[in-house]
Amino acid sequence: MSDRFQKGFETIKQYVTEEEANWMIKNDALADIAPDLRKFIMEFAYGDIYSREGLDAKSRALVVITSVVTQGAEPQIETHIKRGLTGGLSPKEIVEALLQLVPYIGFPRVQNALTIAQKVFRARDLTVE
Amino acid sequence: MSDRFQKGFETIKQYVTEEEANWMIKNDALADIAPDLRKFIMEFAYGDIYSREGLDAKSRALVVITSVVTQGAEPQIETHIKRGLTGGLSPKEIVEALLQLVPYIGFPRVQNALTIAQKVFRARDLTVE
Amino acid sequence: MSDRFQKGFETIKQYVTEEEANWMIKNDALADIAPDLRKFIMEFAYGDIYSREGLDAKSRALVVITSVVTQGAEPQIETHIKRGLTGGLSPKEIVEALLQLVPYIGFPRVQNALTIAQKVFRARDLTVE
Amino acid sequence: MSDRFQKGFETIKQYVTEEEANWMIKNDALADIAPDLRKFIMEFAYGDIYSREGLDAKSRALVVITSVVTQGAEPQIETHIKRGLTGGLSPKEIVEALLQLVPYIGFPRVQNALTIAQKVFRARDLTVE
Amino acid sequence: MSDRFQKGFETIKQYVTEEEANWMIKNDALADIAPDLRKFIMEFAYGDIYSREGLDAKSRALVVITSVVTQGAEPQIETHIKRGLTGGLSPKEIVEALLQLVPYIGFPRVQNALTIAQKVFRARDLTVE
Amino acid sequence: MSDRFQKGFETIKQYVTEEEANWMIKNDALADIAPDLRKFIMEFAYGDIYSREGLDAKSRALVVITSVVTQGAEPQIETHIKRGLTGGLSPKEIVEALLQLVPYIGFPRVQNALTIAQKVFRARDLTVE
Repeated sequence: MSDRFQKGFETIKQYVTEEEANWMIKNDALADIAPDLRKFIMEFAYGDIYSREGLDAKSRALVVITSVVTQGAEPQIETHIKRGLTGGLSPKEIVEALLQLVPYIGFPRVQNALTIAQKVFRARDLTVE
Repeated sequence: MSDRFQKGFETIKQYVTEEEANWMIKNDALADIAPDLRKFIMEFAYGDIYSREGLDAKSRALVVITSVVTQGAEPQIETHIKRGLTGGLSPKEIVEALLQLVPYIGFPRVQNALTIAQKVFRARDLTVE
Repeated sequence: MSDRFQKGFETIKQYVTEEEANWMIKNDALADIAPDLRKFIMEFAYGDIYSREGLDAKSRALVVITSVVTQGAEPQIETHIKRGLTGGLSPKEIVEALLQLVPYIGFPRVQNALTIAQKVFRARDLTVE
Repeated sequence: MSDRFQKGFETIKQYVTEEEANWMIKNDALADIAPDLRKFIMEFAYGDIYSREGLDAKSRALVVITSVVTQGAEPQIETHIKRGLTGGLSPKEIVEALLQLVPYIGFPRVQNALTIAQKVFRARDLTVE
Repeated sequence: MSDRFQKGFETIKQYVTEEEANWMIKNDALADIAPDLRKFIMEFAYGDIYSREGLDAKSRALVVITSVVTQGAEPQIETHIKRGLTGGLSPKEIVEALLQLVPYIGFPRVQNALTIAQKVFRARDLTVE
Repeated sequence: MSDRFQKGFETIKQYVTEEEANWMIKNDALADIAPDLRKFIMEFAYGDIYSREGLDAKSRALVVITSVVTQGAEPQIETHIKRGLTGGLSPKEIVEALLQLVPYIGFPRVQNALTIAQKVFRARDLTVE
């Protein structure tokens, strides 16, 4: 495990639960065809980028949620809403960020993202406000 | 001027300078073909959405910058970097938000957005850090 | 219920059946996390925009179908094909609009949209021509 | 000149002026590197697709304008607003179609498209309404 | 069957198995609403474009896979990974092309595409390397 | 200079001329606001990704050109057409790759990319075939 991977793994723990972090270290769904993808995510995305100074974890989570919602990248919307919640965003802040996008991307993608957020909140027994 | 327009105008003042706000109220570049566009931006985008509680102005600016960068909507990248600066984001925070996007949208759109940010920072004599 | 909501509700009746309109008024799938989304859709999308003069209902439906197909926003493709049919577009016109998009967005998104259209037409026992 | 090219050329005359049609037949900006592009546009886009029955020319122009605006494909926005005007859309209908897109793609791309429309209308001395 | 359809059908045989080609000729999922779509795909996409000289079949398949992954057009990612394999790309080359996209489109769409590739490889009992 | 930067710099020399490589090492347009962007491009994009085995340089260049054209990321279309030429793609192969995209993204973005390619070819005195 490289230093950058180690740094990435320490950083991702701000965004996933202890249990998820342990699960991640033992499992890699794409190990048989592209084991380097996980390595790059950990080393580059979390080790080099998320770990930088100058913007707090909550804001980084907000930026990432916004980007995947704007792209309509569905499995990632769920992943990053979960990581945002663990990283300190409240359900209310996530909902407000999604509504803030209406004037910039229109209703369809916001509605789809809110439906995913609702599912995540319910699974974690979270309410808005 | 409707109440919602008034509310929008009060809200946009968090994101533009006094001078720009005054300019806006007197000028509407699209007045001859679509005067309602400015009305909708003021009433709906700023009056209904930006003015909501539950997410601070800086975070709203961050969400909007992220979305227009992810879309590659160029004139708006400049507009919303300027509004973000007025709204309280530091040049450093804006640069960090753009770098945070690299793992989610790739280098090209981030590089283009940083070039725009640089131009805005230079025009306002701002440095990063 | 605001005037704009009322106006939006009257307008949406051009695009949904009586039954659907009644259902809508009693149900809001996102009521627990973002009750304002439905309000904004009704007030802004239908009350302020769809209700404008200068473009007929069928053309508005065509514009919206085209936009969600170009974006690849899947649940909305189904929704707006249904609303377009109720709003006066024939199955033939919808199919022709989708084929018209091939030179502008390529085959993949058109093929996906036609598959959705086919499902909607079959459920309503509609044939093309 | 193939039959399909001929059919395409006859069809494009619904969307361009006599003068532009004559210009097109003598000029091809990409002739030195990709002469087949113009051939494909004429044969496939106009000969096979635009010439189909079941949707009138104005609606086809509306579909195409909507798609290029949704994509943010800038040089084509200008081209197809011009062709839409020649094809029978009024400036008012074009403006209304663009405003109809706000709830589906957000303000930025609509604002950019209206700015292009304004330039086209002014060059042709057209007013809205 | 036009000459162009025939040429397209000969060309597609480089990208699909004998069995799939025979199946295609007898089946058209959209025959009841848009029979011309298949005709256009065969005549234009395969007959006019894929059959051109100057770029080999493997490279054409690579271009198409890259484009549908960049667009996030999901059913087509599966279709074109399959056609690429039949057209001569190795599983390794496909995986490398997808990883090559990370710096240009970010991790989310690459991860989704790799998950689809994995499913295709497993169904065909293919391993990477 | 890290090992990964060094590896990236060696790799990028397959895609840029000696002169450009030397220029790059001395110049960084974004040095005042985001010096790490160039570092990440060199270390991650070129050092980690482009340098991988299993796909040749020409194919990697083709994948990247295809992706930026599909995205419509304009300054990068020019950059990567140039790098593709230096990396071994012929003007003919680039033109064919762009035409291959027509059925997948439509004419507008292909036409814009061909116009950029034409400019690059002319500046280098290259002809197609």
